[in-house]
Amino acid sequence: MASTTNYTPPLLDLTIDNITENVVRINSQSSDARLNYLMERLVTHLHDFARETRLSTHEWMAAIQFLTKTGQMCSDVRQEFILLSDILGLSMLVDSIDHPKPPNCTEGSVLGPFHTGDAPHLPIGSSMSSDAAGEPMLALCTVSDSSGRPISGVKVDIWETDSSGHYDVQYANRDSPSERCVMTSDVDGGFWFKAIKPVSYPIPDDGPVGKLLRQLNRHCWRPAHMHFMFEKQGLDPLITTLFLRGDKYETSDVVFGVKTSLVIDLDKVDEETAAKYGVPVGALLLRHNFVLASTEETEKLRDNNAMEAMERLGLKTKLIDHLPVPDLD
Amino acid sequence: MASTTNYTPPLLDLTIDNITENVVRINSQSSDARLNYLMERLVTHLHDFARETRLSTHEWMAAIQFLTKTGQMCSDVRQEFILLSDILGLSMLVDSIDHPKPPNCTEGSVLGPFHTGDAPHLPIGSSMSSDAAGEPMLALCTVSDSSGRPISGVKVDIWETDSSGHYDVQYANRDSPSERCVMTSDVDGGFWFKAIKPVSYPIPDDGPVGKLLRQLNRHCWRPAHMHFMFEKQGLDPLITTLFLRGDKYETSDVVFGVKTSLVIDLDKVDEETAAKYGVPVGALLLRHNFVLASTEETEKLRDNNAMEAMERLGLKTKLIDHLPVPDLD
Repeated sequence: MASTTNYTPPLLDLTIDNITENVVRINSQSSDARLNYLMERLVTHLHDFARETRLSTHEWMAAIQFLTKTGQMCSDVRQEFILLSDILGLSMLVDSIDHPKPPNCTEGSVLGPFHTGDAPHLPIGSSMSSDAAGEPMLALCTVSDSSGRPISGVKVDIWETDSSGHYDVQYANRDSPSERCVMTSDVDGGFWFKAIKPVSYPIPDDGPVGKLLRQLNRHCWRPAHMHFMFEKQGLDPLITTLFLRGDKYETSDVVFGVKTSLVIDLDKVDEETAAKYGVPVGALLLRHNFVLASTEETEKLRDNNAMEAMERLGLKTKLIDHLPVPDLD
Repeated sequence: MASTTNYTPPLLDLTIDNITENVVRINSQSSDARLNYLMERLVTHLHDFARETRLSTHEWMAAIQFLTKTGQMCSDVRQEFILLSDILGLSMLVDSIDHPKPPNCTEGSVLGPFHTGDAPHLPIGSSMSSDAAGEPMLALCTVSDSSGRPISGVKVDIWETDSSGHYDVQYANRDSPSERCVMTSDVDGGFWFKAIKPVSYPIPDDGPVGKLLRQLNRHCWRPAHMHFMFEKQGLDPLITTLFLRGDKYETSDVVFGVKTSLVIDLDKVDEETAAKYGVPVGALLLRHNFVLASTEETEKLRDNNAMEAMERLGLKTKLIDHLPVPDLD
């Protein structure tokens, strides 16, 4: 008791009007200034939400049950909370905040709930799809820095659905990864692989998130796309997606991931390319150069954006480890 | 496509600055005005939280994992999300908003995560505890309305921990309910039962909520108390708690549930009472009259509070089914 009385007021007779400041105060005892700040903003918004909506006990209980079901829908191969974050636009927002892109760099998009850690590391030139029903597509890609220099040794994670619009992890009998792989860019920053043409597909709608979308009269579709994630020491990790132009859902992606610069046209493989890469003439061809920012470039931009934003919001903060905390000095 | 273009803008190239309005817009297509309003406030606060904290991808992922673990800690007999709501002060706030009390009525407190639906209906005068190690306590209670008239036929749910500070559901080998019961008030509004003296106890701290409390340097204790829930057609349901005066945690309840009017003194059973109720002279005695508001009284107060609050917040709303929605007329 004595150890806390110095820091906190008696937590007694709390009312609609004074509960927030008291909860914030008792949540401010950590030595981690960032945690204290996150909790202060979280509790303030949570309480303001309840006050502005006059949230009923019945609605509160519905939310408790919704969150419980969402957690219980998660497994090693399904992440319903990421899906929820995606359809609320939070995932795109956080990516935009944390990974701002210098001019000319490839824009980011949502990670989504279907990335796995078990994709096989394949040599350049491999096929990453075993789906014979898919339309074959050759992908010829390069990675460069913001001044156009190729970057070798970049770890590239690639994943897409099969031709029916399902990721491997959506099959109950999945015994090994499919339509996903990891490659490493070569000395010229290049990596190429055989895949299948991406198709548009509905996100899993048999859980709480699907139910919510139906209640909101929203569709659950994503336009045809392929996921890429790039990592190398000294580079800001890039999580992005390429979308096929002309998809029915191009301007209504359920997870808000589409950016004009990420919408691409597929080409057709000509004779020379066919011979060089061992694919049929006329097969679909995806060509793309990914431009990655350095850690330094991104950090500088992120810090500047943060300080400007906090000033615009009228919040007096300083950055610790590149993240804002209240500036009490 | 045609069916949505009338209602939503192209969801493309969303930025930190325009994503919120666009997500809100696509979430406004339900015919349920209340749902649209809840989603609008939810998305606005969620996005503002990310913008004001410059939430990092790393922190976002930690939150995803925290929520996932919280959901997966829930079972038929454990509700970790209610516990989370409790320690963030949200549960107390929602109860205060949804169940305002007219003058003289008994104040409310948190439901907590340990109420169950399987408590036995016991006749008045029963013992609701089978814990021989507990200090015996006789409880003599009445229920009345706000003008002091006794109310018969009220269903009263009562639950407390055993003498070690654990609810029955916290035991892995629980085969039947213990330290909990349901009674019905008699023609004089009375109900009485044999119980044990409540003890202070730590909320379950082996899950994500316990970990969060430790990170926040907060203790996880509740002062000694007994839970009561009252229900009868025509009455506003009352969820409340009686606390024993002088508890070490009286002014630092981890779930913010204590109100001065709910802190009581125990008495000792005198000879006459001992003979009448068949308990030893000198045993502990809890006497309390619970005063319940009618549905009508509560609704009127809730509606007034809501309209006043929304006006103070500068929000133009009207009430539908006693809950605010934007007034667009």
